Amino acid sequence: MNIEMIRAAATRIHGHAVRTPLVRSEFLDQIAGRRVWVKPECLQHTGSFKFRGAYSALSAMAPDVRARGVIAFSSGNHAQGVALAARMHGTSSVIIMPADAPQMKIDNTRALGAEVVLYDRATESRDEIGATLSAERGLTLVKPFDNAEVIAGQGTCGLEIAEDADRLGIKDADVVVCCGGGGLTAGIALALEAEAPTLRVRPAEPAGFDDVARSLAAHKIVKNPALTGSICDAIITPSAGDLTWPILRRLCGAGLVITDDEALCAMAHAFSRLKLVAEPGGAAALAAALFRKDEIEGDDVIVTISGGNVDPAMFTAALETL
Amino acid sequence: MNIEMIRAAATRIHGHAVRTPLVRSEFLDQIAGRRVWVKPECLQHTGSFKFRGAYSALSAMAPDVRARGVIAFSSGNHAQGVALAARMHGTSSVIIMPADAPQMKIDNTRALGAEVVLYDRATESRDEIGATLSAERGLTLVKPFDNAEVIAGQGTCGLEIAEDADRLGIKDADVVVCCGGGGLTAGIALALEAEAPTLRVRPAEPAGFDDVARSLAAHKIVKNPALTGSICDAIITPSAGDLTWPILRRLCGAGLVITDDEALCAMAHAFSRLKLVAEPGGAAALAAALFRKDEIEGDDVIVTISGGNVDPAMFTAALETL
Repeated sequence: MNIEMIRAAATRIHGHAVRTPLVRSEFLDQIAGRRVWVKPECLQHTGSFKFRGAYSALSAMAPDVRARGVIAFSSGNHAQGVALAARMHGTSSVIIMPADAPQMKIDNTRALGAEVVLYDRATESRDEIGATLSAERGLTLVKPFDNAEVIAGQGTCGLEIAEDADRLGIKDADVVVCCGGGGLTAGIALALEAEAPTLRVRPAEPAGFDDVARSLAAHKIVKNPALTGSICDAIITPSAGDLTWPILRRLCGAGLVITDDEALCAMAHAFSRLKLVAEPGGAAALAAALFRKDEIEGDDVIVTISGGNVDPAMFTAALETL
Repeated sequence: MNIEMIRAAATRIHGHAVRTPLVRSEFLDQIAGRRVWVKPECLQHTGSFKFRGAYSALSAMAPDVRARGVIAFSSGNHAQGVALAARMHGTSSVIIMPADAPQMKIDNTRALGAEVVLYDRATESRDEIGATLSAERGLTLVKPFDNAEVIAGQGTCGLEIAEDADRLGIKDADVVVCCGGGGLTAGIALALEAEAPTLRVRPAEPAGFDDVARSLAAHKIVKNPALTGSICDAIITPSAGDLTWPILRRLCGAGLVITDDEALCAMAHAFSRLKLVAEPGGAAALAAALFRKDEIEGDDVIVTISGGNVDPAMFTAALETL
């Protein structure tokens, strides 16, 4: 896992992924006490950065392997990223989703060309279903974050941040990244280490599910005690991965922890000031910039909005905080 | 008014305006029956394309003229664009707004550094107030659309569309533009005439306020019978202007007319599929692409989302159409 893999991924995804800009608003700067630059990955294909990693992984496969199809476990953003990346490569995808996943996510994943296999969380093992299908059909598993080519794909987001920061003269800034398993955070950290070493990566997580913040403090992987109970579902994972953790440990500053209510407020500010739709987990980094300003350093802060796949009811709840 | 003025404006605004991308979603393509490319000017500074024209006008002024300050009449997007452009040039702005304008718009315009002068629509003349202030202080009026440097600034949006269309291989497409006084529409039309002559500009307007569509059909300027009664307030003007009309007449295809309900539906689709916040008037072109597909030609259609300054209540109403 190194910067050359990220550069190679950038070459492969060029012209296929959305090259997102950095956007800002004076009004957010006033709240944050510094200039806030937002990387809107909600504008990425399928509404989250996950498309970058999925496309990177698919495009790095040997053609004969890829032609047999891919498989992923996900009820969320990774599912849609893999489904679209597979279709763009002319191959098939199987996405194993819990039968109680939101119908819209199931429908969307199917509409992107995936074969959706539903399982009962209470009585069936998704791993067994996946292993059987993979063996029968020769499918290749695309993990959501603990996969080097996936991390390389997410790292392309960091290359773009480095390029824009250089153009804008931003040198001394924290780069706050919404963090689940750490694929995006690790990828951006590696890219910035090579291309913008004065920028510091900081993971942002919801309170109670801040395993990476606690892991960084403890210098070892710490797991979350639970996996439900936050609206920031997109960034709730058991713990960092075997590939992501060494990168996070080496390159990240202290984690920033925000509440669900702060995530909703950040969504409302993204609506009114940036005209962007963020999902709760995707707003964690912006929430940290707005509401943890004493824990952040520098005249500028760069934050990811990592995704925008939110249903209307949750979004309406966010607008009610205005 | 010519392409060289637009190219010069592009040089002046480079690095100051947001260089917006073209974004799309497979799901919108399915509704529209062709590929839909969206130019999200809601991501522009102050939430609408108006910043381009305002910055262009301010940057084109002689320094001693600009230093005396500028004045504009607006209760909406032009007000905020002029206020921010003035501040970025280190000069002052006076914005004359009706006293019954939404408090948030008044607050935002003030927060961007403008001196807001309120008048009573029933008893006072904004033109008299403006003339008096301009004479006293030597202020320069920045008109919202019938000003060559403003049109040139809006035209930079067209240069970007031409550049991206060329890169993406889009040759045969209608370019649907949300149209009020015609500044954005005329600017884009001039830019495409020079840089992408196979792309055809089509104005989009709300039903009952479709003066440009009717003017194009009649080959002469036709006025709207009323100026209130649509939620698409951002694109309601009495008629096209003396500068914009000859350009529209020469270069635009037939106008497309959408309903308020279709604008709300388009806002909801922009939310769920593009993760973008559009205001009703800003969604008119997308609504035309989605709901007037039989009136549009080509395998691709390009639409502007011209602004995103919408209050939460209106946005919630749009989400209820999903």
